[in-house]
Amino acid sequence: MMQFAKWTNSSQVSITRDILKMTEQPGVISFAGGVPAPELFPAAELAHAYREVLAAEPQSSLQYTTTEGFHPLREALASLMVERGVQCSADDIALVHGSQQALDLVGRLFLEPGDLVLVEETTYHGAVLAFNPHGVRYRAVPTDDHGLKVEALRDLLQEERPKLIYSMPTFHNPSGVSLSHQRRQALAALVAEFEVPLIEDDAYAELRYDGKQEPAVKAFDQDGRVIYMSTFSKILAPGLRLGWVVAPREVIAKLNIAQMGASFHVGTLLQRVVHFYLSSGGLPSHIETLRSAYRVRRDAMFEALTAHMSEVARWTRPEGGFFIWVQLADGLSTRQLLQAALSEKVAFVPGDPFFAAGGGQDNTLRLSFSTATVESIKEGFARLARAVRVVA
Amino acid sequence: MMQFAKWTNSSQVSITRDILKMTEQPGVISFAGGVPAPELFPAAELAHAYREVLAAEPQSSLQYTTTEGFHPLREALASLMVERGVQCSADDIALVHGSQQALDLVGRLFLEPGDLVLVEETTYHGAVLAFNPHGVRYRAVPTDDHGLKVEALRDLLQEERPKLIYSMPTFHNPSGVSLSHQRRQALAALVAEFEVPLIEDDAYAELRYDGKQEPAVKAFDQDGRVIYMSTFSKILAPGLRLGWVVAPREVIAKLNIAQMGASFHVGTLLQRVVHFYLSSGGLPSHIETLRSAYRVRRDAMFEALTAHMSEVARWTRPEGGFFIWVQLADGLSTRQLLQAALSEKVAFVPGDPFFAAGGGQDNTLRLSFSTATVESIKEGFARLARAVRVVA
Repeated sequence: MMQFAKWTNSSQVSITRDILKMTEQPGVISFAGGVPAPELFPAAELAHAYREVLAAEPQSSLQYTTTEGFHPLREALASLMVERGVQCSADDIALVHGSQQALDLVGRLFLEPGDLVLVEETTYHGAVLAFNPHGVRYRAVPTDDHGLKVEALRDLLQEERPKLIYSMPTFHNPSGVSLSHQRRQALAALVAEFEVPLIEDDAYAELRYDGKQEPAVKAFDQDGRVIYMSTFSKILAPGLRLGWVVAPREVIAKLNIAQMGASFHVGTLLQRVVHFYLSSGGLPSHIETLRSAYRVRRDAMFEALTAHMSEVARWTRPEGGFFIWVQLADGLSTRQLLQAALSEKVAFVPGDPFFAAGGGQDNTLRLSFSTATVESIKEGFARLARAVRVVA
Repeated sequence: MMQFAKWTNSSQVSITRDILKMTEQPGVISFAGGVPAPELFPAAELAHAYREVLAAEPQSSLQYTTTEGFHPLREALASLMVERGVQCSADDIALVHGSQQALDLVGRLFLEPGDLVLVEETTYHGAVLAFNPHGVRYRAVPTDDHGLKVEALRDLLQEERPKLIYSMPTFHNPSGVSLSHQRRQALAALVAEFEVPLIEDDAYAELRYDGKQEPAVKAFDQDGRVIYMSTFSKILAPGLRLGWVVAPREVIAKLNIAQMGASFHVGTLLQRVVHFYLSSGGLPSHIETLRSAYRVRRDAMFEALTAHMSEVARWTRPEGGFFIWVQLADGLSTRQLLQAALSEKVAFVPGDPFFAAGGGQDNTLRLSFSTATVESIKEGFARLARAVRVVA
């Protein structure tokens, strides 16, 4: 037995492992995953980009690069940020191996044992995976159907001194909700007032299916308190592993030092390939394709929920992203429903593990429509309705 | 000003930054870098692999995968390990974003503030970058022209209780030396006896230009104490960012949990592309190409050293790798020589920063022949000889 660092004894395996196992059973219709639809990946366009970049730059695209990375890619990302309401330059951007590495590196820059992190009532499990090794505590900021309640956050900030606030203001995972325009402004003002860094995790920014696009919270960040992160995992492909951070220069400088120790830099070839793809101008129409496809799936799931679950549950009405959050009627248990659902060969994720600060009730669950077809949604909800009848 | 974690205040920027700056001056002949020769990258073969993989597996190659990663790639790595004397299976292997991430993740698994890490007298700077954030101490194990002195390590282990030993037994960076067969066996036995984990960093394994190939120290690891790491950075291309760890199962399990929090997994496409390349059988002949090219460069540098530096220096005689370590005669200062050399437009790295545990003298320097042509070596040493005459 080796003598490991203490944090490794308490570390948990991600719930995504259980999800994968559930969905691997033959014949199971799964609403459990949270991954993009693989048939929508722009594989041919990426193959073209790899071919062109390796032909044009066979040496520099395969060599080491600086930790800061390929300047033209960061310029392209700065342009992309304009659509999200954020004015920034290449030097305000750090490149990472997907959002997960952004969470890991930002966690390392700020967190020490005993530190407090404020999170939404339900929160993204990947953030918890990244922060837990530092031995931090969590407190939940109350949320409603419009996201984090800013006045409740103010009350918390008057009481506690968190090291970080972690939030997913747009198409939240798992709840699906989005912060209103007014709350975005108020949130930026509040973190400026209390001088607390806010991590804005914006993984689903472009995947809006209706309603008006809202600027990122970062757009209202006058005081340099918002550390914004996003990724190509949902709009290009997660198998690439490329994300970025937009943050004040002092944070970017320290992030790059941390990145140097963590993995030197993101793959040079990958950086150039994504830059080539962005330069080719194909992203906007690809995003339209994604929106159309996911909108149909979301609407099919709304319809199925209304048809089969109206009497036993209420759910969020996300304008984008991958997820719908369901609260079962009193007396119904998610774990019992999941047992019955798996017998009927349909899967979802129970809500409990998403409550990082505790307080989860046993009557919530997360549904994902991203990889489901309309037919599988219809059939899956027929099965789910049978499962409900077993436990209700 | 934000309130960062304490370690960030003492973190240093890598010496590679200074190196890059020195070599970026126009007209400078640089022996300072440590990067592979870009004209030797198998760009066409990699382009072929990307094309084939994206055509054959457009969905699974771009989707998320498990943290453990693509099983056939790990099987291919297990086969590759046989040539290094190590019997292992796919389940003994973890995939990482290059050796640097291996160092980072292993550091996180073991190191806590105040822990002691034993390193060779001069050591790889990337390891120090990865370990420093944990607030560790270093002590140097004495070395000679055959690498780490195992009996001196025994003395240290009787005195101190290190958390990790970090060693580069083959074609050491920066010294170029390699551990003898006998010392490899003795080292493995010693870490078993004292129950201390040994990190074996084997980045240059395949790049042997003469002499007999030695098995990895891991080959003698009966007791599961050796954590072996290697990379495709030197034998394929560093711009890909792919490395691997071979270690006892309990270490692999914890590494994968750490990897999940750190970046989920190495890029799916990259894993499949490297697997495709390995399956195509092209690696052995590519390695022969690399050996032939680097051997010529090393020999040219040996010749130039003999011609120009015999009276003012002694140096190591590496049988592989990228580096030659030079010790100047008493009274000669590396820093002064570097000043004069830069005036003559030739660059190298002073030895001082490689002494992680201190004790560096101001008369050592590292030369790299990996990216130099025979002509640039001849011209560079003519310049270096002029610089020596200025300071001698």
